[in-house]
Amino acid sequence: MTNSNSERPSEFELIAELFAPLATSPGAFGLTDDVALLVPPAGHEVVLKADAVVEGVHFRAEDPADRVAKKALRVNLSDLAAKGAEALGYLLTLNLPDRMSMTWLADFVRGLSEDQKVYGISLFGGDTTSTPGPLSIAISAIGTIPTGTLTRRSGAKPGDLVFVSGTIGDAAAGLAVLKGGHPGLPELEKEMLVQRYQLPEPRLALGQALRGVASASLDVSDGLIGDLGHIADVSKVRIAIDALRIPRSDALKAAGDTQKYIVLAATSGDDYEIAFTAPASKREQVLDTASRTSTRVTEIGRVMQGAGVMLLGAKGEEIPVARGGYQHF
Amino acid sequence: MTNSNSERPSEFELIAELFAPLATSPGAFGLTDDVALLVPPAGHEVVLKADAVVEGVHFRAEDPADRVAKKALRVNLSDLAAKGAEALGYLLTLNLPDRMSMTWLADFVRGLSEDQKVYGISLFGGDTTSTPGPLSIAISAIGTIPTGTLTRRSGAKPGDLVFVSGTIGDAAAGLAVLKGGHPGLPELEKEMLVQRYQLPEPRLALGQALRGVASASLDVSDGLIGDLGHIADVSKVRIAIDALRIPRSDALKAAGDTQKYIVLAATSGDDYEIAFTAPASKREQVLDTASRTSTRVTEIGRVMQGAGVMLLGAKGEEIPVARGGYQHF
Repeated sequence: MTNSNSERPSEFELIAELFAPLATSPGAFGLTDDVALLVPPAGHEVVLKADAVVEGVHFRAEDPADRVAKKALRVNLSDLAAKGAEALGYLLTLNLPDRMSMTWLADFVRGLSEDQKVYGISLFGGDTTSTPGPLSIAISAIGTIPTGTLTRRSGAKPGDLVFVSGTIGDAAAGLAVLKGGHPGLPELEKEMLVQRYQLPEPRLALGQALRGVASASLDVSDGLIGDLGHIADVSKVRIAIDALRIPRSDALKAAGDTQKYIVLAATSGDDYEIAFTAPASKREQVLDTASRTSTRVTEIGRVMQGAGVMLLGAKGEEIPVARGGYQHF
Repeated sequence: MTNSNSERPSEFELIAELFAPLATSPGAFGLTDDVALLVPPAGHEVVLKADAVVEGVHFRAEDPADRVAKKALRVNLSDLAAKGAEALGYLLTLNLPDRMSMTWLADFVRGLSEDQKVYGISLFGGDTTSTPGPLSIAISAIGTIPTGTLTRRSGAKPGDLVFVSGTIGDAAAGLAVLKGGHPGLPELEKEMLVQRYQLPEPRLALGQALRGVASASLDVSDGLIGDLGHIADVSKVRIAIDALRIPRSDALKAAGDTQKYIVLAATSGDDYEIAFTAPASKREQVLDTASRTSTRVTEIGRVMQGAGVMLLGAKGEEIPVARGGYQHF
């Protein structure tokens, strides 16, 4: 918004009236300059992440504007969380169809403003462009981390345990509910699942507390099994997950509680939880960390020599899973 | 590309084969982690800028893929240049229509790779998503600057002189040529103007040399007069520009040399030159800076008390100009 080639005549009004109050950091210059300035605290490195959400792909056109804004922001903060970083702010690029109203934009900005307070972050600049295509929101999140403490994907070792935060599979079931699925579920369970789809919760406190405890971690966005495959690949290890230990919410269990549903939960996306490994000697430390940050953490498997990810059933048998990609409920 | 919700099945191949070689900085982890790490040199601040280009708005669907890539990158580097920053790298978010071929993508990546070498920068991560809409490229550029030396928009003072780099109006005339305009121009002039539209030249060396010399500066992207209006607004001054001193290329003059064409040049966009002010006492220093960085710099006006921007004709009469927005040749 500090500078743009947009042809929307009202853009400068948008800047002044809507987005400028989001530039709460002095280095954002109230969005009145070409760039923003960021001064990392002494002894810290800068952590960067860019992720976009597109209408019809990552959210639905009828989703509330404030929730769309929060989801766009939170999927990026979730990556900072998984690495142990602290969030500082973000850059925002909006591709805006002409049909979006000022009311929609005001709700969108309200959503951003509310989350800025929750996470203590500032808008650092951006760009708004009109598009004949769908609404698209690209965010670059900026965080900081004490030098040398980033939790990589590459540190998992044979003998390590595998953990995951929160519950898995809710978001995909929430999307199914929005599409008319699970008609028999009580309204409260439906809304809980929908909220998990629309409002992921970046686990920033947990991720920071896991610095030096976790040996490898990432955020679960494309499905638990597929994402753990990235840790397996980069760490050059094999990961075995016990299907029955994968944490599922009561609402999800009410939607379906057979092995089929567990596999769907483990392979569907949009969870935005942290999956991580830690040495077996640090199990107590992990559980203590979970307790101190009031975050549910569940031990779900172990790291071995080899390659790839195995999902194991009740009797230790391997459950076949198509790796990667979205699965839908 | 480090993480994505994309449903394109070939995305992980794209990452590995095409984009990973662009992650030349160690902190980009070869795009194998959730985030990138950036370590600013001691005594430096981080400079951030996000700008998107959209097919049909900022470039044409038939523009060569390598030039589209370079333009997307350079419009961001141009902002860093105008502030005196050094470029370090960028985050890239691609909204990719299904019709884009692997050949197109390979050319796109080649364009980025060539410019990374020219500007000494690295890809730090990003995201690729399929879209039913037009191709859209959002870039967040990351630079650094010695602490406290950023050239703001807000420092212009009455009595200062106004300068601009390069020539003005070429890009808009180049776009007109691409649309079939100026049929009588020789091919060499046509290609020169088209190149100015497709391949802006961020004036990084000039911008860095102007630290502490320029009192205010910005990059000219929406039209010289409109953009100088931002300096006038933020610096709370009035700016007077002599129309006849606005630097125009021989190719542009060949396309039209009346006052009408000068006004078009001064109000059309996509120049990506640096417009700046400096105290009259520093005129020699400015010209020396231009010479040392082999960059054409032209004195075009002066700063006064008041508000807004005036364009003055040969006899000092004010030429009426509709401020802001694109004008087309």
